[in-house]
Amino acid sequence: MEKKGVLKAGAGSMEAVKTQYFTFGDLATGGLVLDSGEKIAPVTIAYETYGALNSEKSNAVLILHALSGDAHAAGSHAQEQSPGWWDAMIGPGKAFDTGKYFVICSNVLGGCGGSTGPSSINPKTSRAYALDFPLITINDMTRCQKKLIEHLGIEKLVSVAGGSMGGMQVLSWLAMYPSSIKSAIPIATSMKHSPQQIAFNEVGRQAIISDPHWKSGNYYGSALPAKGLAVARMIGHITYMSDTSMNEKFGRQKKNTTEPFKFTSDFEVEGYLRYRGDNFVKRFDANSYLYITKAMDNFDLLEGKGPEGLFRGTDARVLVIAFKSDWLYPAYQSKDIVKACKRAGVQVSYCEINSTYGHDAFLLETEEETRLISHFLKKAFYDYEVTGRYEV
Amino acid sequence: MEKKGVLKAGAGSMEAVKTQYFTFGDLATGGLVLDSGEKIAPVTIAYETYGALNSEKSNAVLILHALSGDAHAAGSHAQEQSPGWWDAMIGPGKAFDTGKYFVICSNVLGGCGGSTGPSSINPKTSRAYALDFPLITINDMTRCQKKLIEHLGIEKLVSVAGGSMGGMQVLSWLAMYPSSIKSAIPIATSMKHSPQQIAFNEVGRQAIISDPHWKSGNYYGSALPAKGLAVARMIGHITYMSDTSMNEKFGRQKKNTTEPFKFTSDFEVEGYLRYRGDNFVKRFDANSYLYITKAMDNFDLLEGKGPEGLFRGTDARVLVIAFKSDWLYPAYQSKDIVKACKRAGVQVSYCEINSTYGHDAFLLETEEETRLISHFLKKAFYDYEVTGRYEV
Repeated sequence: MEKKGVLKAGAGSMEAVKTQYFTFGDLATGGLVLDSGEKIAPVTIAYETYGALNSEKSNAVLILHALSGDAHAAGSHAQEQSPGWWDAMIGPGKAFDTGKYFVICSNVLGGCGGSTGPSSINPKTSRAYALDFPLITINDMTRCQKKLIEHLGIEKLVSVAGGSMGGMQVLSWLAMYPSSIKSAIPIATSMKHSPQQIAFNEVGRQAIISDPHWKSGNYYGSALPAKGLAVARMIGHITYMSDTSMNEKFGRQKKNTTEPFKFTSDFEVEGYLRYRGDNFVKRFDANSYLYITKAMDNFDLLEGKGPEGLFRGTDARVLVIAFKSDWLYPAYQSKDIVKACKRAGVQVSYCEINSTYGHDAFLLETEEETRLISHFLKKAFYDYEVTGRYEV
Repeated sequence: MEKKGVLKAGAGSMEAVKTQYFTFGDLATGGLVLDSGEKIAPVTIAYETYGALNSEKSNAVLILHALSGDAHAAGSHAQEQSPGWWDAMIGPGKAFDTGKYFVICSNVLGGCGGSTGPSSINPKTSRAYALDFPLITINDMTRCQKKLIEHLGIEKLVSVAGGSMGGMQVLSWLAMYPSSIKSAIPIATSMKHSPQQIAFNEVGRQAIISDPHWKSGNYYGSALPAKGLAVARMIGHITYMSDTSMNEKFGRQKKNTTEPFKFTSDFEVEGYLRYRGDNFVKRFDANSYLYITKAMDNFDLLEGKGPEGLFRGTDARVLVIAFKSDWLYPAYQSKDIVKACKRAGVQVSYCEINSTYGHDAFLLETEEETRLISHFLKKAFYDYEVTGRYEV
C-alpha cells in the first residue's frame, strides 16, 4: 500500500548524520522566558533529523533524550564509529521507521551537546555562564523543542517519545501542547520524582560540588571536577541496572590483578563502574549535570492540580511503557500516568515489559519496544483505532 | 521461677555504661594472624558489657555491630545523652534482657571506636597505620571477638546476634566456632554481597579516595577527607531506607529557604542527607570505612564449599530475620542462609518482618524483633525446643 506524500529514505541516509543548530532570540528582542521568570537569549538548540519530511509536513516524530543523552539519537557521524543512543529504534524498518517518519532529536536546554547550557558563552559577560545560567525546568526544555518544531514548519507531530527524563518531556508536551501531537510515548518515567529519586540525584550533585575543582561552577578553562562527576555517574549506573542484571553481568567475578591491595578495584563490577565513570567525564559537563538533575527533581506534572484540567481537550493517544525490574522509575509511577490519563479521558494503553535490565531496559529492550511502538505509531499516524492490549 | 545463678541487674546499671579495653599480642610473641597471612600486634578491642555474668559464666550474649556501629550498643555514657545504637533491644526487660543475660558488644577490628584500626598507632613506625594497616576480613573480626570472650572466661555464648555486617559476623561465628555458641541470630544480612551491594560500597570508597584530603590515606593530623566520607554516608543512607519510608518521611516537602538558587538543598530529603553525611564525619574514620566495606564485600561464607561441611556438628539453633522492604539485603539472601542451614542439618527458624523501613528496619522494628528474639533466646538458654513459626 503506497502512502501519499511519504518519502522513502534509503538505508544510506543513516550513515552520515550531522548535528544541526537552530538559534532563536536575541537580547534586544527578549529571547526565551523561562518558568523562573528569567529570560535567556540567544538560545541555540542542537538537533539531528533522520528520514525525510513529507510535503504535508505530517510525518514528524520527536524523540526526547534522557539525562546523559544528546541530539545524536541514531546513525553515525562521519569519522565516528559509535551510533546514536537509540539507534536500534530509529532507522529504515525500525520502530521509528525513517522510511515513513521524519525523526527529530534535539539536545535539551541546559545540556552540553550543542544546545545552550551552563558551558555556553553568556553574551553579557563573554564568559561561560557557569552558575549564572538560570534555573531551568523540564517545561523550559519543551518550550525550546516547540520553537524548533515551528522553525521546521511542523504544526503537528505524529508522536513525541522518550524514556526516563525523555518521558518527562513527553508528559510536558502532552500538558503544554496537546493539540500539537497526535500521540505520546512516555517510557520508564514519572510525573514527579519520589524522594528516593531526588536523593540519588542529590548525592550525585554533592559529589560534584564536593570536588575542589568544581570551584562554585567556575572551572571552565581549568581542571574539571572530573572525580566528582565520575562518582555521580557511578551512582547513576547502579540505579540504572537491577540486582538481577548486575548478578548476570558481573556476579562476584574478580579481576586478574597482581597489584598490592590498596583499594584498587578487585571485583569486575568495580572496574566497570570506574570505567563508565571516567568515560562520562570526557563527554559531559558537570554543571549541566547539576542543572538537568535539578530540573528532573523539580518536575511535578500535576503539582496539586487534577489531571482533568491538564490534559482536557487532547485527542492525542498515549502509550505508557514500564519495565518490571526498573526500581529507579518503578512501574507504579507509570501506572499513575495511566490513571491520570484515564481520569482526563485520554485514550491510553499501558504495557509493562518483563525485563531484568532495570531502568536501562528502555535502551536495551528494543525488540519488545519496537513491536509495541511500531504498531502504536502506525495507528496514530493513519488514524486507526487504538486498542490497548495491555490496558489497565 | 527463680533461675539459678542469674544475677539481676538493676535498671540503674544501664545509666552509666563505660567502654573498656582488652589488648592482646605483642610484636615479639606474634599477635593475631590474619586471613591475609599478615600479623598484627598488639590488638586492642574496645567493648562494653551490660548486665552481670553469672557464676557459671553461662549467660553471655555477644552483640555484633554493623558498618557504622561501635561497642556502645546500649545505655548512656556519663555526660552523654545519646543511648547506644541498639538500646531499644538491650536492657532490663528488653529482648536482650540484662536481668537475665550478660550482654557484650565490641568494636570490630579495623574500626575507629577504640579497637585497633587504620587510625591506630603502628608500633613499627610510631605513626598511624593508615594504608599500612593490613587487609582484614569478617573472620578476622570474629577471631578478635573470640579472644575477648576467652579473656572474659566465657566458654560458650547463649547467642551471637547482629544485623547487616553484624549478621555476617554471626555467620562467621557459626562457621568458625560452632561449639562455642548455643544460638545465632543473623538479621538482615547475607552470606555474600551481590554485585549491587559491592557497587554501592565501591562508589562510597571512590567518593573518599577522590577527596584530595584523603592523600592515599595519610590525612591524620591534617584536614580530613570529610566531603568524600559525607558523600559515602549519604549513598549509604539512601540504601538503608526504602522508597516507601522515604515517601512517608519526606514526600516532596521543600525546605523554607530564601537563599538564591545555587544548588542548595531545596527538598527536605536533601537537607536530611547532607546533615547525616556531615554528622558522620565527626565520628567516623574514612580509612576505617574503606577497610570495613572491603571486608564486607570480600566476605563469602561458603566460597564454593557446600554448607554441609561448614556447619556440620553444630547444635546451635539459628533464627534468621529479614525485612520485606529491605532492598539492600533482600529477603532472598536471608532465605539462602536458611537453605544452607537446612542442608547442613542445622535447626533454623526464619521470620520475614513486614516493615516499610528498608534495611534500617533491623534498628527500628525493635518491638517485633523483641517478640521474636526474647522467645527464641529463652528457648536457647533453657534448652527448650525451638519450633520455627515461620519456618521455610
